[in-house]
Amino acid sequence: MKKNNIHIGEYNMDYFDRTNSDLQKAYEVEKKKYTSFIKAKLNLNMARGKPCKEQLDLSDGMLDILNSKNVVSDYRNYGGLEGIKEARELFAKVAGVSEQEIIIGNNSSLNMMFDYLMRAMQFGVNGKPAWCTMKTVKFLCPSPGYDRHFAICETLGIEMITIPMKEDGPDMDLVETLASSDESIKGIWCVPRFSNPDGVVYSDEVVDRLANMKTASDFVIMWDNAYCVHALYSDAPELKNILTACKEAGNSNRPIMFGSTSKITYPGSGIAFMSASVTNINSALDKMKIQSIGPDKLTQLAHVKFLKDIDGIKAIMQLHAEILRPKFEMVISALTNNFSDTDLVKWNNPTGGYFISLYVKNGCAKKVCELCKKAGMILTPAGATYPLNLDDYDSNIRIAPTFPPLDELEKACDILVCCIKLAIIESITK
Amino acid sequence: MKKNNIHIGEYNMDYFDRTNSDLQKAYEVEKKKYTSFIKAKLNLNMARGKPCKEQLDLSDGMLDILNSKNVVSDYRNYGGLEGIKEARELFAKVAGVSEQEIIIGNNSSLNMMFDYLMRAMQFGVNGKPAWCTMKTVKFLCPSPGYDRHFAICETLGIEMITIPMKEDGPDMDLVETLASSDESIKGIWCVPRFSNPDGVVYSDEVVDRLANMKTASDFVIMWDNAYCVHALYSDAPELKNILTACKEAGNSNRPIMFGSTSKITYPGSGIAFMSASVTNINSALDKMKIQSIGPDKLTQLAHVKFLKDIDGIKAIMQLHAEILRPKFEMVISALTNNFSDTDLVKWNNPTGGYFISLYVKNGCAKKVCELCKKAGMILTPAGATYPLNLDDYDSNIRIAPTFPPLDELEKACDILVCCIKLAIIESITK
Repeated sequence: MKKNNIHIGEYNMDYFDRTNSDLQKAYEVEKKKYTSFIKAKLNLNMARGKPCKEQLDLSDGMLDILNSKNVVSDYRNYGGLEGIKEARELFAKVAGVSEQEIIIGNNSSLNMMFDYLMRAMQFGVNGKPAWCTMKTVKFLCPSPGYDRHFAICETLGIEMITIPMKEDGPDMDLVETLASSDESIKGIWCVPRFSNPDGVVYSDEVVDRLANMKTASDFVIMWDNAYCVHALYSDAPELKNILTACKEAGNSNRPIMFGSTSKITYPGSGIAFMSASVTNINSALDKMKIQSIGPDKLTQLAHVKFLKDIDGIKAIMQLHAEILRPKFEMVISALTNNFSDTDLVKWNNPTGGYFISLYVKNGCAKKVCELCKKAGMILTPAGATYPLNLDDYDSNIRIAPTFPPLDELEKACDILVCCIKLAIIESITK
Repeated sequence: MKKNNIHIGEYNMDYFDRTNSDLQKAYEVEKKKYTSFIKAKLNLNMARGKPCKEQLDLSDGMLDILNSKNVVSDYRNYGGLEGIKEARELFAKVAGVSEQEIIIGNNSSLNMMFDYLMRAMQFGVNGKPAWCTMKTVKFLCPSPGYDRHFAICETLGIEMITIPMKEDGPDMDLVETLASSDESIKGIWCVPRFSNPDGVVYSDEVVDRLANMKTASDFVIMWDNAYCVHALYSDAPELKNILTACKEAGNSNRPIMFGSTSKITYPGSGIAFMSASVTNINSALDKMKIQSIGPDKLTQLAHVKFLKDIDGIKAIMQLHAEILRPKFEMVISALTNNFSDTDLVKWNNPTGGYFISLYVKNGCAKKVCELCKKAGMILTPAGATYPLNLDDYDSNIRIAPTFPPLDELEKACDILVCCIKLAIIESITK
């Protein structure tokens, strides 16, 4: 394949010949399809990593677990700030920590992350001054990444430094150089297994380098292990335990790890957990005891009784994977069928998580999203996967294939492929 | 009754005659009782405003409402930051606001208060600078009051100014003078109906003065209406609507109101709500959308289906009152039987709420709590009802009679009465 040729599906368009008849033909064919999508007044959504109805149904048995005949008194009353013992036991195993190293909260791990950073702003980390008293606080943001992480930093006035993602995690040469040379860099955001959106699983080497690198003494690894047990295929890579690695490196208070059952049971009514060294857990509880008397213990109890043990969690995650695999494969297949012979459209082939990360010709991502929107399909806004929405290349689009039913997803893929082609041809011919 | 006589029950002790034989006799009798309490190795608790088992049982039907057969899809998934429509409708009526003026959260109103003040510290109030950038932030603290309110201020470094409580609410002359003369005073804590612990219902005049007084433009009334529907008797006074009063005064953004079902359904698994002007609600949601994707909607749905409507809430509150009235009356009766003829022990006669506020002879409250503890009964620590635990008179003790069963409460009253007598006689004779 010559580099100066643009291949899109059946068309072979010479970039330097704008009168190329294939190019014109391609554009007209796609435009016609696009007009028909608009006429159909569709209402499709591939914007957010939402489980679909069939996935939610997997956990409906949880609603039958507790009833007026079997409820235990103590679980209804106040107390238990750190979460019920049964839930700490179970999710300690999921998080790879001890029972004393985990707090079970209410329904949102994002809430636990936000609160952690609010406490850092207000009270400081590891006995150092409150971040709000510092002139500048910076965070390393491997990107593309999770827009809600970046939104927290933006809201708290934390400066974000974009770190390129590589195939085995963030660019660690850059991370090490920055973290060791700038005391105002106070943390890094990581989605270490099936990263959002690239689907990357951090390599053991990356985990070790994060654990061992030189940093400010109040530097925090925000380890959002949202997809810890969310493999699509049984041979998906495992993740090295960051807390163990940090302990071995003598930096046991560096990582704060988060997870939830939002994509195991119910997104809105799951339970979230935060794990860390005992020192960090006690320090968090010391402020949390001022914030609340305790989490909803009945929801925690229902979860433990429903999921039972680590094998129960593995079993339900298998069922999730069975529902999700055809969806991921449909999108991958649509992209492969149409763009396998061009360098202008690339994507990852995730083995877990909730996203496909799509890279279109530089300068075309916003246009693709705009065209899709007009045709009745919402995508995560282009740029959202970068700090302050700044994708310098205007190339990355996060595709969330989990929520739509398969027939809608097929239509969504048609629209996506059509819009990519239109955007690229327009960018070439304008 | 002569002022220089100390009457405790059957004993009539002349303060100026320390050799009074009644005094010696009384002390010996009580000491003997006290020794028998210690021998019995009791384990009683009147420390916290916890509902008892029979109260929790009233809501167990809520656990049978949702099941795998009737669950509605949308309530299981992400979203709905402001709470489900049905819950906003119902609790807007409880709070006396419109549906747009309320947010339904998770299980803890304390959490909503803490988060509100964390946002004030970090982002400011009403468009004014963040409180954390100010040299001094002060709060008015009507006292005795709720220890957890004071703990939030202490944790956030907010200076507390103790305001005496009167029979119709805080000393408003002092509140007005301070609020209008010091820009660094940014708020006031209020438990306006059945105040914690005095059981005071703020008068209409107090509400109006709070709404109309001159304050800093980012002054906040933290209106913790924890006991809004928690009357013990049907003729308990109603509370004037603070939001309406503030709107009429042109200060609609001044009050932030809180409530929960912690003492309507389950303390640990209820739902909390925050109500305020639409401007304030939108401003809170603007930050909350960064903090979380939304609350647990299934718990909200179960609550609405269980409680049904405002009449349903009134009905369950009647049942709570029936369980609680004998407990309150038992304590009041024990106090009356023993201390009705002395000025050295006073108490309120609450018509609602969760506490009896006990005032013992100055300098004796800590001693009473200490004696009770040794005899196997935990009380709220003396001083806890004042900012920084500073009860200048060492006089107030918060009695929480709701949790123990009646037979334990009877024993607890015996111990309390005995310890009060011992402490007072010791203070006279030492």
